[in-house]
Amino acid sequence: MDKNYYKVNDGMLWEAPDDENDVIWRFKGNPLFDFNKEKRFWHICNSAVAIVGGKYIGVFRCETPDGRPYLYIGKSADGVKWDIDDKAIKFVWKDTGEEFEFDHCYDPRLIKVEDKYFMVFCGHEDSPSIYIATTEDFEKFILYPRCFLPCNRNGVLFPEKFDGKYYMLNRPFSGNGSKDGEIWLSESADLEFWGHHRKVINKFDNGKNYWERIKIGPGPAPIKTDEGWLLIYHGVQSTCNGLCYSMGACLLDLKDPSKVLYKAKRYLISPSEPYECVGFTPNVMFPCAALVDSKGHITVYYGAADVNMGICFTTVDKLLKFVKEYD
Amino acid sequence: MDKNYYKVNDGMLWEAPDDENDVIWRFKGNPLFDFNKEKRFWHICNSAVAIVGGKYIGVFRCETPDGRPYLYIGKSADGVKWDIDDKAIKFVWKDTGEEFEFDHCYDPRLIKVEDKYFMVFCGHEDSPSIYIATTEDFEKFILYPRCFLPCNRNGVLFPEKFDGKYYMLNRPFSGNGSKDGEIWLSESADLEFWGHHRKVINKFDNGKNYWERIKIGPGPAPIKTDEGWLLIYHGVQSTCNGLCYSMGACLLDLKDPSKVLYKAKRYLISPSEPYECVGFTPNVMFPCAALVDSKGHITVYYGAADVNMGICFTTVDKLLKFVKEYD
Amino acid sequence: MDKNYYKVNDGMLWEAPDDENDVIWRFKGNPLFDFNKEKRFWHICNSAVAIVGGKYIGVFRCETPDGRPYLYIGKSADGVKWDIDDKAIKFVWKDTGEEFEFDHCYDPRLIKVEDKYFMVFCGHEDSPSIYIATTEDFEKFILYPRCFLPCNRNGVLFPEKFDGKYYMLNRPFSGNGSKDGEIWLSESADLEFWGHHRKVINKFDNGKNYWERIKIGPGPAPIKTDEGWLLIYHGVQSTCNGLCYSMGACLLDLKDPSKVLYKAKRYLISPSEPYECVGFTPNVMFPCAALVDSKGHITVYYGAADVNMGICFTTVDKLLKFVKEYD
Amino acid sequence: MDKNYYKVNDGMLWEAPDDENDVIWRFKGNPLFDFNKEKRFWHICNSAVAIVGGKYIGVFRCETPDGRPYLYIGKSADGVKWDIDDKAIKFVWKDTGEEFEFDHCYDPRLIKVEDKYFMVFCGHEDSPSIYIATTEDFEKFILYPRCFLPCNRNGVLFPEKFDGKYYMLNRPFSGNGSKDGEIWLSESADLEFWGHHRKVINKFDNGKNYWERIKIGPGPAPIKTDEGWLLIYHGVQSTCNGLCYSMGACLLDLKDPSKVLYKAKRYLISPSEPYECVGFTPNVMFPCAALVDSKGHITVYYGAADVNMGICFTTVDKLLKFVKEYD
Amino acid sequence: MDKNYYKVNDGMLWEAPDDENDVIWRFKGNPLFDFNKEKRFWHICNSAVAIVGGKYIGVFRCETPDGRPYLYIGKSADGVKWDIDDKAIKFVWKDTGEEFEFDHCYDPRLIKVEDKYFMVFCGHEDSPSIYIATTEDFEKFILYPRCFLPCNRNGVLFPEKFDGKYYMLNRPFSGNGSKDGEIWLSESADLEFWGHHRKVINKFDNGKNYWERIKIGPGPAPIKTDEGWLLIYHGVQSTCNGLCYSMGACLLDLKDPSKVLYKAKRYLISPSEPYECVGFTPNVMFPCAALVDSKGHITVYYGAADVNMGICFTTVDKLLKFVKEYD
Amino acid sequence: MDKNYYKVNDGMLWEAPDDENDVIWRFKGNPLFDFNKEKRFWHICNSAVAIVGGKYIGVFRCETPDGRPYLYIGKSADGVKWDIDDKAIKFVWKDTGEEFEFDHCYDPRLIKVEDKYFMVFCGHEDSPSIYIATTEDFEKFILYPRCFLPCNRNGVLFPEKFDGKYYMLNRPFSGNGSKDGEIWLSESADLEFWGHHRKVINKFDNGKNYWERIKIGPGPAPIKTDEGWLLIYHGVQSTCNGLCYSMGACLLDLKDPSKVLYKAKRYLISPSEPYECVGFTPNVMFPCAALVDSKGHITVYYGAADVNMGICFTTVDKLLKFVKEYD
Repeated sequence: MDKNYYKVNDGMLWEAPDDENDVIWRFKGNPLFDFNKEKRFWHICNSAVAIVGGKYIGVFRCETPDGRPYLYIGKSADGVKWDIDDKAIKFVWKDTGEEFEFDHCYDPRLIKVEDKYFMVFCGHEDSPSIYIATTEDFEKFILYPRCFLPCNRNGVLFPEKFDGKYYMLNRPFSGNGSKDGEIWLSESADLEFWGHHRKVINKFDNGKNYWERIKIGPGPAPIKTDEGWLLIYHGVQSTCNGLCYSMGACLLDLKDPSKVLYKAKRYLISPSEPYECVGFTPNVMFPCAALVDSKGHITVYYGAADVNMGICFTTVDKLLKFVKEYD
Repeated sequence: MDKNYYKVNDGMLWEAPDDENDVIWRFKGNPLFDFNKEKRFWHICNSAVAIVGGKYIGVFRCETPDGRPYLYIGKSADGVKWDIDDKAIKFVWKDTGEEFEFDHCYDPRLIKVEDKYFMVFCGHEDSPSIYIATTEDFEKFILYPRCFLPCNRNGVLFPEKFDGKYYMLNRPFSGNGSKDGEIWLSESADLEFWGHHRKVINKFDNGKNYWERIKIGPGPAPIKTDEGWLLIYHGVQSTCNGLCYSMGACLLDLKDPSKVLYKAKRYLISPSEPYECVGFTPNVMFPCAALVDSKGHITVYYGAADVNMGICFTTVDKLLKFVKEYD
Repeated sequence: MDKNYYKVNDGMLWEAPDDENDVIWRFKGNPLFDFNKEKRFWHICNSAVAIVGGKYIGVFRCETPDGRPYLYIGKSADGVKWDIDDKAIKFVWKDTGEEFEFDHCYDPRLIKVEDKYFMVFCGHEDSPSIYIATTEDFEKFILYPRCFLPCNRNGVLFPEKFDGKYYMLNRPFSGNGSKDGEIWLSESADLEFWGHHRKVINKFDNGKNYWERIKIGPGPAPIKTDEGWLLIYHGVQSTCNGLCYSMGACLLDLKDPSKVLYKAKRYLISPSEPYECVGFTPNVMFPCAALVDSKGHITVYYGAADVNMGICFTTVDKLLKFVKEYD
Repeated sequence: MDKNYYKVNDGMLWEAPDDENDVIWRFKGNPLFDFNKEKRFWHICNSAVAIVGGKYIGVFRCETPDGRPYLYIGKSADGVKWDIDDKAIKFVWKDTGEEFEFDHCYDPRLIKVEDKYFMVFCGHEDSPSIYIATTEDFEKFILYPRCFLPCNRNGVLFPEKFDGKYYMLNRPFSGNGSKDGEIWLSESADLEFWGHHRKVINKFDNGKNYWERIKIGPGPAPIKTDEGWLLIYHGVQSTCNGLCYSMGACLLDLKDPSKVLYKAKRYLISPSEPYECVGFTPNVMFPCAALVDSKGHITVYYGAADVNMGICFTTVDKLLKFVKEYD
Repeated sequence: MDKNYYKVNDGMLWEAPDDENDVIWRFKGNPLFDFNKEKRFWHICNSAVAIVGGKYIGVFRCETPDGRPYLYIGKSADGVKWDIDDKAIKFVWKDTGEEFEFDHCYDPRLIKVEDKYFMVFCGHEDSPSIYIATTEDFEKFILYPRCFLPCNRNGVLFPEKFDGKYYMLNRPFSGNGSKDGEIWLSESADLEFWGHHRKVINKFDNGKNYWERIKIGPGPAPIKTDEGWLLIYHGVQSTCNGLCYSMGACLLDLKDPSKVLYKAKRYLISPSEPYECVGFTPNVMFPCAALVDSKGHITVYYGAADVNMGICFTTVDKLLKFVKEYD
Repeated sequence: MDKNYYKVNDGMLWEAPDDENDVIWRFKGNPLFDFNKEKRFWHICNSAVAIVGGKYIGVFRCETPDGRPYLYIGKSADGVKWDIDDKAIKFVWKDTGEEFEFDHCYDPRLIKVEDKYFMVFCGHEDSPSIYIATTEDFEKFILYPRCFLPCNRNGVLFPEKFDGKYYMLNRPFSGNGSKDGEIWLSESADLEFWGHHRKVINKFDNGKNYWERIKIGPGPAPIKTDEGWLLIYHGVQSTCNGLCYSMGACLLDLKDPSKVLYKAKRYLISPSEPYECVGFTPNVMFPCAALVDSKGHITVYYGAADVNMGICFTTVDKLLKFVKEYD
């Protein structure tokens, strides 16, 4: 089957919805990878994508057949068909210039802050922590010291600084029985020393939003709009047979992103397609990247069932309306 | 696809089996809901259905996109295509006449006792308990005080009184490690004060019926036959990847329904179709309603994978033979 | 050692405090039992005591050396030295007159309601439930059907009826992870059929009273005062090495005991003596009985470390002042 | 659909791969059983197969509709279409000649040692243990006393003796938190008294092979090659929604099979087809039998999702290359 | 304090009871060790003692201040004051003669079988298993291969062979949720290859003996009497604050020790002294050795609270009467 | 009893040992508090002490009778008899000057860095985190923003800066099943922004030091010596009845304190006195403060059983010898 039903809009993959009232809708070419052909990897999921110099580039969470998740560079002309490197990313410590290899690492986000690309991801030396790496050529990744003490598995920078400081949304993991899995904001002038941590987004809103009852965590880099920062995040519910990861959305204040202006009580989209409901971890949609074009079209890349990648589409206007209407 | 392969029998939806030897068989139009069109709800499952004045009426467990389960009235001409209300049921306290809204509620059963319709369901004020509501018009539901102390999630009334008392089958939840999840019988003269609780149906029969090893709970209202009360119930087995809910059947004594006359050692039907095996909670068939016509045809409505609704068919004769043959 | 340092006041054992400012203080003859002499039982704890016809009578939770807890009658001239029967209590079902023996039973309370003595306790047929028995001679105990569905381990009647109904405080056990272990109120006209259940006393007061963070349950029968019903209850905190049971107090409305007038944020007394901190279950004070004389002296009997019995003293005035001062 | 696309090779079912570079590939006729027709059983999975006298014979783990797993003889002309007996296997104790019925039993392996067929399987008298039975006619199974103290769920004999001793690979279950789920080797001269137990294959290789992080266990009987014993085994990874069972391979020393010559770090094949990812226990491939013909073709029978059976193919040469290349 | 209140009887330490009716009574010199003086060890507990050539010799479970349990030889003139070696026992493999050191080892029993001393204990190479060592001089211990697959923590040989076979009582550990912690009997002709395992003593007797509800395990070597083998064992109950280890007794058939002739429903003795109720693991009496003199006096050594050692006394006649009376 | 058996040395409480060979020994006046007199608090434990201007000052973890832990100033002439304030410490945010009250807070350490006093402690806004406060008068405490994301319960600053940076030892809590509970080092130039986190002290040393198998955490501020920084820390072992907290010691490099020069494999001192083994949390010694005089005498204050405070003594020379001898 030739996947030519999509079109590229302003250089960005985008498809209009079948139903104009839809808030968010899936790409008809989902899922992206065919493992019958792509036998090098067990799973490809939860990956970051950017358009750099008019070309698609991605950092993919690939699990080699030994089951180890690591990060690989992929390139694409259209955002759908990807050439993924045979070798994993190489990291070089910022302070010493020495190469470094994690035990394993995963769940990257790519953010351009002031013309520089940063990748935020979860790396394991021994415990899971958030790391930042920067790159100019998507070949060499300069690695900053781990941002936080363990444990923290999800982090994403804002695309702009605030008062000269980098801001990072993140999800500290504080153990079962604690107020685990909510979204915090941390600041740093230099990406090395972090502080002024405060929780900014609560899950569950004190007992109503069951779809995000267990935990929430930041997804793609927040999208700047006139009305605030649009944040797409993952929210998790439990059943007697495991967890279900959906996507949600909220709007943070432009100047003080620790203020939540609107937060939709309902999920934005939830697993229902076979490639989302069946797989290594059933019932997972895990967004890691969102591209936006000049017309406000949004293309979201998400991991599906911890096995594959999917794409869904929305627009800035639709999301703004959504977070207000269901706040 | 036009779902016109079924026929309505005596005003009740029913399909004959492809194989005459089948004890129970699925409706070819399963599952009932298409969420691509019905976007108002996340899931519709575990719901009660009745034919009132020749028309189908149902009380549906719908989860709105915030993930909250609540009860909604639905109407149907054929029992397959349903118009579900936009707004949830309103409850009015029987004693004060004040309106009341649960934190959330679910898993209703509808029972007609002496020309009056009762709904039994699980409601959460803070902990899960069984509540009864009665209605004349399926618009206003008069709510009785909670029947039992927490926790109890499944209850169903008998369609007749015994010695002037209402009888309710129910499944107290008594915590992990206890003899959790078996079927009890409780009595009340007024639906408000309950007592004479005793366990009437044991799970697992001391180590043989693995399909119901974890817990069992009452399903639709018992069906009166010449030989006794036919009870369809859910039975649960565990695997290393979660729980599996199947249906079972037994026959209770006509005059003293605390006596089990026959109980089939084997399940009646177990999840095998994609819409039962894949979804929010994989591997779930959860029966909440059973309609019977004058010829003894039975139409069972059941929740599928905590996402959708299915229908299966059987007959009184087949069930009676089944519970005796496999006792 | 001759335990003659106490005195009997108005027929009731009572000792004045060493320090007049004390709210509650221990009996100098604690603990009550010497197992080097009393070898018939493994433990004697959590027992009920009353003065009937000027003489002390008690129902003791005794664990025979097979480890099985059951109830035994004890008699005493002074409330300190007890003669405990060799044989356990015999129960007779109220409806059939047949004898009945529980698998095991424990934690009794004795309450006189309108000149009739009732014992409320936890009995196991298969799961733990609350039972009521009544007696005229403390030899034959007439047993009512189990009050509630499982699980419930602590219940106590009010000494008076309200609008012709018996009121029972109780602690439903609703499983780990639920809002477990708070005090509910239930009503019955006949002690057989119960309803109108509502939670009346919350633990922890939303995050401040750490000593009662895990669960709370009713202790002795509420004490009637001009200002309301004084309730002594147990409250439980957890440490990394287990649980700690202390005593607390609150005041319920005279006419509507579902209203809490005052509830002391602090514990009344907490384990600190060796016989409370060391034993089968370390760090336990579990009050089951409170005697009151005409002067408002109060003598509380409590289980110590699930091994032995202790006594402590207070007065109505001191408790009233306590619940108001620390509300 | 007529399943005639396979061919029988040298009397053994075998299909060439579509892609010559494939190491292992699935049978196009998977899965083997159609439960719409085969209604006698709930599940058929994890079963042993042999070619005896040119005909296919199998011992199947069948779960009857009461959910009880037991062993049944099946016969087949082609290894694909099977006639399974109505009645389960009968066991006869070797020492007394008395018949014996397990509470339940499952997961058989068939091994021919010195012209005698042995079945090794997991049986429950009360706890799960490994048992051996021998048969001449596949009708009467002579049962040896349980080999090990509980718990042990997977065992397989080598097809040859070593220094006059039988060798058994097995997987002791030693409880959560221990070094659970690794492959041990035990010896016996008489199949009754076992000793010289030692662990021979470690899971996870100290933190790299995530696909086998949780536990590993022996699969089919080791295949003798010039270079050593080829062992196909199962390896298990966990996700937040349960476990995933894949297959792995290693090569043991011909003379001293406690020496691992090569062990592939990566899995050999992992669940990806619907019948492996959806079912009673999603994401399970559990190999129990491997047939080899004179040309080194290998036909592996495996349980799929604890529901059905699948077949996959490989060759001795491919496996030898695989374990060396990825060691 | 001079501990001279005891007397040595027939070369064996023994004290008569204060009360002739006592079945078992504690040594007045308990506990044995004074850690203010004996600073080399953190704890000394659960140890084996024998009288060899008229002199006391013991194998002590000592935990050095790094917390590691290992075995040390101790010598004593009176069974009370012990000289414990500075260095731990050295093991030499029986087959190779090579020295071996366990990761750690503990809970020894000493048994003389046909004029040869054997020590049975729990050793960890990686998982806990039962090992046997034999010694002639209590200096060099010849180590047999591990007897069973993991996990097993308690084993003791019978002092005699049966039909030429060694018999070992042991307690396989089969994981939480299984029928864990009961006493099995295994046989071996050569102490290397073991089989014919069967469970011989059930805990809890189907729901009555709460003191041994959680698990039971064999204690000292069975004592031969005219009427059968007297076995002292440990039985464990749980509370909400942990476990309580008591001692129990039963009588096994002289010729077929898999037959239980009598088993007392009640415990023999249970922790009540401060050194048993307070310490590293509160509420533990763990018997590992029992000496018997010609008059049938019995001296039991037991570990107290996982910290220290205690002694208690009984007689063969008293134990025989006890197991019959309370069966 | 008049506690006058101690003497003040150089202004610091210190007692010589009874046995010159002792490495560390307890104060004869232990425990410090008498709750029969000091009725304001439930427990006083895990507290910090300093000598400021020749006078003792302490910050005490006191639990008021509602069970809430908070910090209180205490003053003392001799370090033994303490006057503790009626009111808890008031915090003032450094940036806004606003007063702040924690939900609860505990386990303080006091450190003088360059003539300024800092308190490091665990505070809960919602999750447990490390906070720093500074004070000039021990009345007003200036509060810095929380140092780390949750969860972290133990932190202590070095008394000196390194290259202009503050160094903090701390124990991130990373959830069950992770490499939880080891000692990390973090850096900050301004006490607000922290980074360069690295683990510096491993527990258990790969399987030998069982006394610290579960977790380790920093105790009092490191003591500067010519040979390095002496660190006293807590180490935790588990039993089937809970946890046991002992003290350990190690020596860190003077210039680069991330280097461990020596670490004693054995504990320094472990609970054995009644006030350490019995109480709210049995078997706990938790060191929070260590005073050193000019002669190298060391006075350690530690929490006992989460109830009371104890003191023990050692010297710099003894500790240096200890960490080398048992490394």
